[in-house]
Amino acid sequence: MPKENNVGVVGLTVMGKNLALNIEKRGYFVSVFNRTYQRTKDFLENEGQGKNFQGNEQIESFVASLAKPRVILLMVKAGQPTDATIDALLPHLEQGDILIDGGNTFYKDTIERNEKMNALGVHFIGTGISGGEEGALNGPSIMAGGSAEAYRHVEPLLTAISAKVDDEPCAAHTGPDGSGHYVKMVHNGIEYSDMQLISEIYFIMKNILKLSGSELHDVFAEWNKGELDSYLIEITADIFTKEDKEVPGTLLVDNILDTAAQKGTGKWSSQSALDLGVPQTMITESVYARFISALKNQRIKASKVLNGPEQPENAFDREELLESLRQALYFSKICSYAQGFAQMSAASEEYNWNLDYGNIAMIFRGGCIIRAQFLQKIKEAYDTDNNLDNLLLDPYFNKIANEYHPALRKVVSLAISHGIAVPTLSSALAYYDSYRSERLPANLLQAQRDYFGAHTYQRLDKEGSFHTEWQEK
Amino acid sequence: MPKENNVGVVGLTVMGKNLALNIEKRGYFVSVFNRTYQRTKDFLENEGQGKNFQGNEQIESFVASLAKPRVILLMVKAGQPTDATIDALLPHLEQGDILIDGGNTFYKDTIERNEKMNALGVHFIGTGISGGEEGALNGPSIMAGGSAEAYRHVEPLLTAISAKVDDEPCAAHTGPDGSGHYVKMVHNGIEYSDMQLISEIYFIMKNILKLSGSELHDVFAEWNKGELDSYLIEITADIFTKEDKEVPGTLLVDNILDTAAQKGTGKWSSQSALDLGVPQTMITESVYARFISALKNQRIKASKVLNGPEQPENAFDREELLESLRQALYFSKICSYAQGFAQMSAASEEYNWNLDYGNIAMIFRGGCIIRAQFLQKIKEAYDTDNNLDNLLLDPYFNKIANEYHPALRKVVSLAISHGIAVPTLSSALAYYDSYRSERLPANLLQAQRDYFGAHTYQRLDKEGSFHTEWQEK
Repeated sequence: MPKENNVGVVGLTVMGKNLALNIEKRGYFVSVFNRTYQRTKDFLENEGQGKNFQGNEQIESFVASLAKPRVILLMVKAGQPTDATIDALLPHLEQGDILIDGGNTFYKDTIERNEKMNALGVHFIGTGISGGEEGALNGPSIMAGGSAEAYRHVEPLLTAISAKVDDEPCAAHTGPDGSGHYVKMVHNGIEYSDMQLISEIYFIMKNILKLSGSELHDVFAEWNKGELDSYLIEITADIFTKEDKEVPGTLLVDNILDTAAQKGTGKWSSQSALDLGVPQTMITESVYARFISALKNQRIKASKVLNGPEQPENAFDREELLESLRQALYFSKICSYAQGFAQMSAASEEYNWNLDYGNIAMIFRGGCIIRAQFLQKIKEAYDTDNNLDNLLLDPYFNKIANEYHPALRKVVSLAISHGIAVPTLSSALAYYDSYRSERLPANLLQAQRDYFGAHTYQRLDKEGSFHTEWQEK
Repeated sequence: MPKENNVGVVGLTVMGKNLALNIEKRGYFVSVFNRTYQRTKDFLENEGQGKNFQGNEQIESFVASLAKPRVILLMVKAGQPTDATIDALLPHLEQGDILIDGGNTFYKDTIERNEKMNALGVHFIGTGISGGEEGALNGPSIMAGGSAEAYRHVEPLLTAISAKVDDEPCAAHTGPDGSGHYVKMVHNGIEYSDMQLISEIYFIMKNILKLSGSELHDVFAEWNKGELDSYLIEITADIFTKEDKEVPGTLLVDNILDTAAQKGTGKWSSQSALDLGVPQTMITESVYARFISALKNQRIKASKVLNGPEQPENAFDREELLESLRQALYFSKICSYAQGFAQMSAASEEYNWNLDYGNIAMIFRGGCIIRAQFLQKIKEAYDTDNNLDNLLLDPYFNKIANEYHPALRKVVSLAISHGIAVPTLSSALAYYDSYRSERLPANLLQAQRDYFGAHTYQRLDKEGSFHTEWQEK
């Protein structure tokens, strides 16, 4: 007999396992299923032992073990494995059952699956879940897309397992169909740029200021007490304390290969921004920075023949430069979130999602990788005006921009003079200077396009489309 | 009776019309068809009058008018209209007939259509045609993808109508299926970044050096005699001579709205680079720069509240700065082509196209929008080594890089200190400094990823994948 108040979880790799444990801790009976039973067996004999779990060898008995309407959380690989799992479940489901896809699914797939499931009378919720292993176990950030009706059913479950900040759950209904996975995708993209910005700032401190590991730790630990207070700054401070057991006397981070991998969500964010016509320079530069990092062999070759600048005289005050770096990091982070929220806003318009940006900032505040104090400021900005064109125009961020942009200019120029690549800091500054410019040189570009392709242009002084025979004298 | 030596053209908008005229001029009989006959009639009564054209009201008679194997050039809108035209033609075609798609088609569509047509025994050639209206009429650059057998049939035609440089035709068989449209797409992407780079340099000259229109003309005209010799520099010089008839005493370019449109190929280039894992920062920044330019109303608002830097004292020698600007433009242009050719190389590997980069540089030299003297240097670089990892590693470009990078640093820093946005110049420099760096800060990034997501990392000193419990002391 199915127990009341129960939930099914399909997929017992680390995220699925930890979410199952998290759900059980909140008082639910959890029925689990994994494609290969061995994994289920291992789980029941280890982490799951003595707890309210039921393992199932067959998908039929798994579904039968659930009270109706059934609530099933899918934690399988995005793409084809998700489709295969849904296809295996479908024959055993009934109208009103609820499927929650908690994988890193591409939002367009979620839009499609949502439509397909709705036609069959099965509720579908595409949910971004952020926080890594640890978040899954103790409280992730949860961004759920799907019908409001379906969400009401699972809201108690999702809020129960989510992170809490000031007693508020970091779980919310973002809007219809693919909206949850879209928000999660942009979250991950912002994560890329947050990490890349920190890395560029670190490299300046290491190579120009010549800070040691313990000094780097101290700086990041100190920054973590102020405006930059965030999970990524906290773990960065931590990383600089970790000695390498293999090479005593060295820091582990110094012995890690400088070649970053990527798993797609940053790339998807950029590709979607390109489709939507939204400038998303910072996530994109961060993705490209990972690509360049992967060309390690070419870089070694190039380093031997392509010259950098002569090292300039270092005439700066150390404390002053550190404060400039802090301001540059905070301000460029703001530019990145401005781009990210503008992108969500364009997507919301394109797909009729009616996203609530204050709400989104709120669920980002805890559980997830980009959790940070300053998200409270973003929440406040959008709570005041959900139709804000750009975060930089909110009074708080406007003030920071006006105070901190000189620091970002100083830092980028310093890096340039030292030959240190700062693609993402540079793109933050170029974005700021473009966005705040009433005039840009695109008039020349339009003239060129009209010259060679008769693409026409508009004028500053009157409405209409115009074409000129440029070669006529 | 079909005339021997004839060619069919479908679609009589400006590009199709001009190509038909070009073909007829080379001694071919040209049979034309347009979905609405009125356009055909207009053409025959105007530009086509008294020449070897045959108009057709019905697609059947159009096909019947062609000698076998039939050669039909499609100049219709990319996407659905191309499919519709092919579907209308197919019932009347025979094995061995040859369809040439000369539109700006997405390369993946060409790959699909190629496969479909081949299965039906019809040859399919996806052809990039560049040069705008004027090139179409007098000699465009032609990049043809398809089977070698099909290309041999149409080679005399395509080389006859193409541009010539030093008596060599700017037409070539790039490789199988989608390769022609891919090369054309990257060509267009490079065109975006060429134009954006020129625009950024222009804006510095206008706003920092305060050059007048005639001075701007003189500078670009002078640059066009040297390393920068190219069509886009030539027309830019021209543009600064064009007075505005509507507002006497002003330059037309100064009255054009600074909002640039885009038609997709730049965006496609960026999206493909993101899929291939190739850093393509410069085309992408150029696309995003157009997006920001389109936010004119937001920019006006932002310009009133977001501050720029205090204007620094201008302590530079005018001639020296102009030379720095010239070097910065040439060097960043080289970085852009380095990225573009690296992207083609990654695509060639992905799709087994076996692209010949020297050949591609050669067909870019004439007819097309990005035609430029320096393509000869690219041709030479790849003729020497078709497996060159990156253009910057070729001796000629390596030397330019080492001589000119200080100028690019100076120009970007100057723009930053004046608050002038230079997204694409900045991205060129960041790319250069990343590419020539043996060490990048991606080690920290990998440490972070392993910390929060157990994504593992590699080490500098030995093979393998490693994971660390970072919080263990």
